[in-house]
Amino acid sequence: MKVLVAGGAGFIGSHLIDALLKDNNQVVCVDNFFIGTKANIEHLKDNDNFKFYELDLTDIEKLDEVFEKENIEYVFHLAANSDIQASANDPMIEYKNTYSTTACILECMRKHNVKKLFFSSTSAVYGDKTGIKLSEEGIDLKPISYYGAAKLGSEAIINAYTYMNDMSTLIFRFPNVIGPRLTHGVIFDFVKRLKEDPSHLRILGDGKQEKPYLHVYDLVDAIMKFKDVEKGVTLYNAGVDSKSTVTRIAEIVCEKMNLKDIPFEYTGGIGGWKGDVPTFEYDLSKIHNAGWHASMSSDEAVEKTVESVI
Amino acid sequence: MKVLVAGGAGFIGSHLIDALLKDNNQVVCVDNFFIGTKANIEHLKDNDNFKFYELDLTDIEKLDEVFEKENIEYVFHLAANSDIQASANDPMIEYKNTYSTTACILECMRKHNVKKLFFSSTSAVYGDKTGIKLSEEGIDLKPISYYGAAKLGSEAIINAYTYMNDMSTLIFRFPNVIGPRLTHGVIFDFVKRLKEDPSHLRILGDGKQEKPYLHVYDLVDAIMKFKDVEKGVTLYNAGVDSKSTVTRIAEIVCEKMNLKDIPFEYTGGIGGWKGDVPTFEYDLSKIHNAGWHASMSSDEAVEKTVESVI
Repeated sequence: MKVLVAGGAGFIGSHLIDALLKDNNQVVCVDNFFIGTKANIEHLKDNDNFKFYELDLTDIEKLDEVFEKENIEYVFHLAANSDIQASANDPMIEYKNTYSTTACILECMRKHNVKKLFFSSTSAVYGDKTGIKLSEEGIDLKPISYYGAAKLGSEAIINAYTYMNDMSTLIFRFPNVIGPRLTHGVIFDFVKRLKEDPSHLRILGDGKQEKPYLHVYDLVDAIMKFKDVEKGVTLYNAGVDSKSTVTRIAEIVCEKMNLKDIPFEYTGGIGGWKGDVPTFEYDLSKIHNAGWHASMSSDEAVEKTVESVI
Repeated sequence: MKVLVAGGAGFIGSHLIDALLKDNNQVVCVDNFFIGTKANIEHLKDNDNFKFYELDLTDIEKLDEVFEKENIEYVFHLAANSDIQASANDPMIEYKNTYSTTACILECMRKHNVKKLFFSSTSAVYGDKTGIKLSEEGIDLKPISYYGAAKLGSEAIINAYTYMNDMSTLIFRFPNVIGPRLTHGVIFDFVKRLKEDPSHLRILGDGKQEKPYLHVYDLVDAIMKFKDVEKGVTLYNAGVDSKSTVTRIAEIVCEKMNLKDIPFEYTGGIGGWKGDVPTFEYDLSKIHNAGWHASMSSDEAVEKTVESVI
């Protein structure tokens, strides 16, 4: 099948492309290198089944030309601003890179009669729901970050386009995803800080902030398993049923970097930044009942990721 | 207070301005005449407390200049594509006029430290939920129209901006709103058709399509009553607890136009267009418990509207 991966030079997108090529698909990758990198797709440049367009997905005329030229059957949409902390100070980043990319992709799909879509949504659509197990239905979605809001808006227009155009759509709400080619986040920051100055480690908050971390290999495995869905929107929380605290992550990073007795300096408070949700817990029964479980626990995913990025 | 009304030359916006002026506010009206008209604000041109800017709200630089120049304390955001049928064939109308207007307004409010917002949302955010009484919480929002999707996306970013910037926000989810200065919809269409050719009346569907119609005077009354809210987002279904069928509307129109024995020609089917929700019912207990009821029933609102537009 000929597929388009939007944001394919990004962390998750590039891993998904590896899996799609292995599964004998022809892959058209579109990326503007806003967060994605040439290095992430460098290994694919001689692959005959891989084609790359450097363009901004919100340049709808140029995107339309790609759809006109290539005979796309399935779109995997992973383009977004994934650096939530950055957009906390500049919300229009989310308007452009997270919401408008979705709007332009959907409009090109409608015009060119492309019926199959995968969309990467996020736990951030739920907002701060500490103490509630988050299932896909029956929860009021009140995003507190601009990122979560732009993703919820994207889900909304995807719902309408899917209904209006008889599309078959799969939406995963991602938790924190980690693994090789990671570009930011707590593991990335700790490794960077300790490489620069291994005398101590500054940790935002009290270290007790606790989230589920899903390895990108597990996530890609789930996308490949569920990608062929019925007409309508199929929605899953994609996650892992264990969590890692920030302090545990710091310990794993030090351990894997062979650094001993590094003093942890906590800034105090609950950590994170305004708009960050300190903790959440998915109800994963829907995806488990459909026959998929993550192969790695959250701590295992952290360990494997640290090994690949140090 | 100095307030900005976005979409103030529109049907609902212009009535709200009348009430705001009566309540001794200074009103800055912004409209691009996409659907709004000069006629709707003609009567205000000599009012010293009224100021008009003709500009497109998505021209964020020009909008920013308005915020820079005027000392706005409260924004009433009623700008949107309100012609849902039109955007069914051209979804990007909603991207631009319904979603992007919201994004640009919020960003200007953030920059200029404006903390108070009223937003006009819609029953269309719920999607097709026939048989369920729609309360503000606990219902999965699955819009099927591009319009409903853009409004839900707007609610989402409003939620994030409100949280991130300590705003006080009131959101009303409007049903069908009717009254003087109406620009489209079933009453408007019937009057127009019968003026052109009173020999018969073509009715889309089987005439049994049944919705609650709220008179714009009642709606404006509710906005004025609830506009001063606490920090955070306060959300109400604003509606009326009776409905009018399309056939009843046709009868009222004929009656008021003194047309007798007009044959109704039904096109058959459930009527409307794809993306239109054939019927819905609000749970109005929240707004009723807060001390507000519509003064007119749905049929009374239709009667009064027909009188004002024939």
